[in-house]
Amino acid sequence: MSDKSKKILDPGVGASYRHRTRRIINPDGSFNVRRVGTLNVIQDAYHWLITIQWIPFIVVITSIILMTNFIYAYIYWLIGIEHIRGAATGLFWDDYLSALFFSVQTFTTVGYGAMSPDSQFVGLIASLEAFNGLLLSAFSTGILYGRFSRPISKIKFSEVALLTPYKESDNMSIQFRIINKRANTVLHMKASVFLSLNVKEDQDGTYSHRRDFYDLSLERSSIMFMPLSWTIVHVIDKNSPLYGITVEELVKRQAEMLITLNGYDETFGQDTYAYHSYVAEEFEANKRFIRNFNVADDGMILLHVNDVDLREDISPKEEN
Amino acid sequence: MSDKSKKILDPGVGASYRHRTRRIINPDGSFNVRRVGTLNVIQDAYHWLITIQWIPFIVVITSIILMTNFIYAYIYWLIGIEHIRGAATGLFWDDYLSALFFSVQTFTTVGYGAMSPDSQFVGLIASLEAFNGLLLSAFSTGILYGRFSRPISKIKFSEVALLTPYKESDNMSIQFRIINKRANTVLHMKASVFLSLNVKEDQDGTYSHRRDFYDLSLERSSIMFMPLSWTIVHVIDKNSPLYGITVEELVKRQAEMLITLNGYDETFGQDTYAYHSYVAEEFEANKRFIRNFNVADDGMILLHVNDVDLREDISPKEEN
Amino acid sequence: MSDKSKKILDPGVGASYRHRTRRIINPDGSFNVRRVGTLNVIQDAYHWLITIQWIPFIVVITSIILMTNFIYAYIYWLIGIEHIRGAATGLFWDDYLSALFFSVQTFTTVGYGAMSPDSQFVGLIASLEAFNGLLLSAFSTGILYGRFSRPISKIKFSEVALLTPYKESDNMSIQFRIINKRANTVLHMKASVFLSLNVKEDQDGTYSHRRDFYDLSLERSSIMFMPLSWTIVHVIDKNSPLYGITVEELVKRQAEMLITLNGYDETFGQDTYAYHSYVAEEFEANKRFIRNFNVADDGMILLHVNDVDLREDISPKEEN
Amino acid sequence: MSDKSKKILDPGVGASYRHRTRRIINPDGSFNVRRVGTLNVIQDAYHWLITIQWIPFIVVITSIILMTNFIYAYIYWLIGIEHIRGAATGLFWDDYLSALFFSVQTFTTVGYGAMSPDSQFVGLIASLEAFNGLLLSAFSTGILYGRFSRPISKIKFSEVALLTPYKESDNMSIQFRIINKRANTVLHMKASVFLSLNVKEDQDGTYSHRRDFYDLSLERSSIMFMPLSWTIVHVIDKNSPLYGITVEELVKRQAEMLITLNGYDETFGQDTYAYHSYVAEEFEANKRFIRNFNVADDGMILLHVNDVDLREDISPKEEN
Repeated sequence: MSDKSKKILDPGVGASYRHRTRRIINPDGSFNVRRVGTLNVIQDAYHWLITIQWIPFIVVITSIILMTNFIYAYIYWLIGIEHIRGAATGLFWDDYLSALFFSVQTFTTVGYGAMSPDSQFVGLIASLEAFNGLLLSAFSTGILYGRFSRPISKIKFSEVALLTPYKESDNMSIQFRIINKRANTVLHMKASVFLSLNVKEDQDGTYSHRRDFYDLSLERSSIMFMPLSWTIVHVIDKNSPLYGITVEELVKRQAEMLITLNGYDETFGQDTYAYHSYVAEEFEANKRFIRNFNVADDGMILLHVNDVDLREDISPKEEN
Repeated sequence: MSDKSKKILDPGVGASYRHRTRRIINPDGSFNVRRVGTLNVIQDAYHWLITIQWIPFIVVITSIILMTNFIYAYIYWLIGIEHIRGAATGLFWDDYLSALFFSVQTFTTVGYGAMSPDSQFVGLIASLEAFNGLLLSAFSTGILYGRFSRPISKIKFSEVALLTPYKESDNMSIQFRIINKRANTVLHMKASVFLSLNVKEDQDGTYSHRRDFYDLSLERSSIMFMPLSWTIVHVIDKNSPLYGITVEELVKRQAEMLITLNGYDETFGQDTYAYHSYVAEEFEANKRFIRNFNVADDGMILLHVNDVDLREDISPKEEN
Repeated sequence: MSDKSKKILDPGVGASYRHRTRRIINPDGSFNVRRVGTLNVIQDAYHWLITIQWIPFIVVITSIILMTNFIYAYIYWLIGIEHIRGAATGLFWDDYLSALFFSVQTFTTVGYGAMSPDSQFVGLIASLEAFNGLLLSAFSTGILYGRFSRPISKIKFSEVALLTPYKESDNMSIQFRIINKRANTVLHMKASVFLSLNVKEDQDGTYSHRRDFYDLSLERSSIMFMPLSWTIVHVIDKNSPLYGITVEELVKRQAEMLITLNGYDETFGQDTYAYHSYVAEEFEANKRFIRNFNVADDGMILLHVNDVDLREDISPKEEN
Repeated sequence: MSDKSKKILDPGVGASYRHRTRRIINPDGSFNVRRVGTLNVIQDAYHWLITIQWIPFIVVITSIILMTNFIYAYIYWLIGIEHIRGAATGLFWDDYLSALFFSVQTFTTVGYGAMSPDSQFVGLIASLEAFNGLLLSAFSTGILYGRFSRPISKIKFSEVALLTPYKESDNMSIQFRIINKRANTVLHMKASVFLSLNVKEDQDGTYSHRRDFYDLSLERSSIMFMPLSWTIVHVIDKNSPLYGITVEELVKRQAEMLITLNGYDETFGQDTYAYHSYVAEEFEANKRFIRNFNVADDGMILLHVNDVDLREDISPKEEN
């Protein structure tokens, strides 16, 4: 057991509110905060392009590239398709399409040459577009690598936290389990667990949404390797602020358990963080986790990644 | 409350001067130091290109690329435009423009082929230029990514620090507030606050610009998450070197409060730092910060990023 | 000597099994864990492309690029080779090869133009392919740099660990030796050594594969510089959990010594980790390491990197 | 004053030698170790290309690119220049030069098309070369960025260390001075100083090259900011292992002072290290450093970067 649990000041999420708030951290890792006045997309374009999902990212980049080509094509069409040597002409769409193909051949620097600038003005615009293409290509390479190289951990948390007896002892404990969905090695994983509890109601009830925070002591607060899953355990002994607590009381006091993990991710060669929270409704009593790995006949350990949530009912006391 | 405030040796900014100096750190984060003999732009080009603002950066890169093309065009013109097959000729400017278009088509590797080298010498120069183009493109990609991937925090500090009563206690406190202008998550934010005070004048007055430095204890010196704003507080209790101080005395003693913050920036996957200072003139008394977030009807917390400076007058003692 | 050896909880590798397991860490640094249900190659492509060996990596990337070109060539052939101006035609393979060359010239943006699109549909497909080529190129650049920039240490561990007398003392010690195969400088190298020992069999034998773990104290747990090799030593004094142990007992108790190293790699400008394990069969008694460096005539130290394993028999006690 | 100086075990550089060795660390930061059996250039190409100087780097990259083109040109010439449509022919050199230009136009993907493949075999080779060009370009971009992004500090150490009185006290001190040649900000700079002293000769003299190491206590072992220079001071009080030492004795005992610095480099957003050593011959007595900054008329601090070595003789005791 590391050090003692202790009451702490607000770990940064606000300690007193006038109304009931939503949970602090959502299951997807976002905070329930609506920000007014942050940097907009233009001011913070890199940050935005790095953090959006892949599908919107591809849509945005494709749109920018297509738009650029449509605009250049329109300019060539305005100048007149007859200034592009070798361009097939015909109706409006034939002309525009010729201009668009010329634009794409210039932007991507393919430059077959079947079409080529036939006036100084087109030559100038085409030069500009070629530089533009190079720049956008450099830019996209940078963003792509930026997206790749963020050390995003794929730590999966069990869906629920358990309020369950600790081994053969008479103490209860809070337990949840994590696993690395990625097959890489995370070294020196460290965990911090905070518990937020609304303070008991005052006589007049005005401050019913004030919260107390506790830094919970852990059975092990760090592990050296994580090839398997890790069950993180807070033992509710007499020194614990949760001594004698029930799931019902956790709900009444709007409990929320905030967790941060960090470790060294060998793939990225960098430190990585993960965080999560369990609200009172995600605590279960009278259950315990079933071990999600076993020894195969060849002596290899067989780890069932998706069984991180596997649990069973407890009736009589057994050894874990 | 973390640990005790203590007098420290100079944190690196110089402890004694013969004349009155400007503030140590400017509001924009630069130091008031003029350096003679540092590496020049050529010796330290990468560092320079990485740290200048975007507008000058774009101007510099564009100039380098344009200059390169103008020079190659001039070389082609010198060799003779008749050595470029297919080049439109005419007056000087027509010839030069043809040479320039050929240069751009070579540099960007568009290579339509409507113009192509028609002598071995032009072939050689064009080969050189094509390599040159690839290299400058690789170089620009590298610099662009270098600029993108610097973990620059967008922490905004309140414009003033307050000398204000600490909660309901009889103690005064120094408070300032920070907020993340970017909508990302900074984890494990830590703050250090140093105070520089000129020592009381000697009889003969020679060393009136000697400074004492204090490492101020903080109510919370780190927070785990920062989805909201963070008010950083030094309580001026009996152990504080500032016990009984007034704004007037801070001004007289040329006080400057130096602050460093660091945390893990999730977007960049790296540690990030921010620093700032408040000079005596930026301290205000008889004010207190107004909370810049509230709970919306749907339980979400509404954070007003631009209200980090919102403060009100204090008259009678109220609860904060 | 750093601090005391102490019994610890499982460092993350599992403490009790129902059957005999293989060693925890293989000599190549992999864990003997078979994972079921991790992210597949598509879901975790970047991680996979970053961590596979160079030969498979090159095969994969080449295949992707070739496949893409074969498919585009097939599409051009389907549309009809006569829609590519200048394409050499003939039998099926002549047509397909022309289509393939056109595809490659488009994909790589070489675009000689001897072949060029001669219909709007081919123009459209070719535009798509050119963008596709740029994207795959950006992607490959990103992956390549990702592979390059991982701070992979080239620390070589001695093949065996020795159970050998400690200097001139009466104590035994466990020793192993590491060396940097790369000629760069690693600063501030830190070592942690854990020992896993199966607990003595119970009466009924059911839990014969339960393990105890010890965090072993080290003679030096960190060094500032590592220009030479480093012999890491655990002295088996009376406070050691290994006091009086023999190689035979290590084998009987299925001992495995787990090691992690980390330091700052100057080449990559990042922290780097290495880990390794010695199973009981890799312990040797009655040997000692022979120093693998000596002073050359010119005062330079001559380091024999491949002699990290050099050891000799001990008979009478000599000074080391 | 931080903590006490203490005798330590070898910080990784070897504690006992049979012959006199050269200094441990050279003024350029290299170690006086000749390594036999490290990875060769092929096995460790990235590391090598990242760490060599700029001039050899450019020579190597240029050579690789030129060689590649010369070889492809030779292949085209072997196949026969008549298989390249539009190639100028003539004597051997004319043919080879045509082949070379075709190669360059293919490699760089310029592809004017004035020359283009005129047989399936040339088409195949040219396709290969175009892919080759893209790959080498991606590779060079990666290496270039790798070189740029290494957080190389430009810390300059004073040429000598001084054995000089400490302020107005009766104690002597060892002092040296560092400065950042780059105009960027290094935060939270930490210093460690080790002293290596040969132990006094034994009766029989065999181990005259055994060394003792001391971890020296420092007046300040870290500073928060480094806008100016930093004079690092070990006070030789009664607790110091150097109490009463003279420069002559330092020489006799082959003293070498090993220094490591590390801090957060704001430009690179990463931790950076610097190390250095002073041998006994680089210690000076009866000198003291002259402050290398002063306050300009406008209150700015004027820092003379190149005056980091400025020192003056001391005769009578004055205040520093």
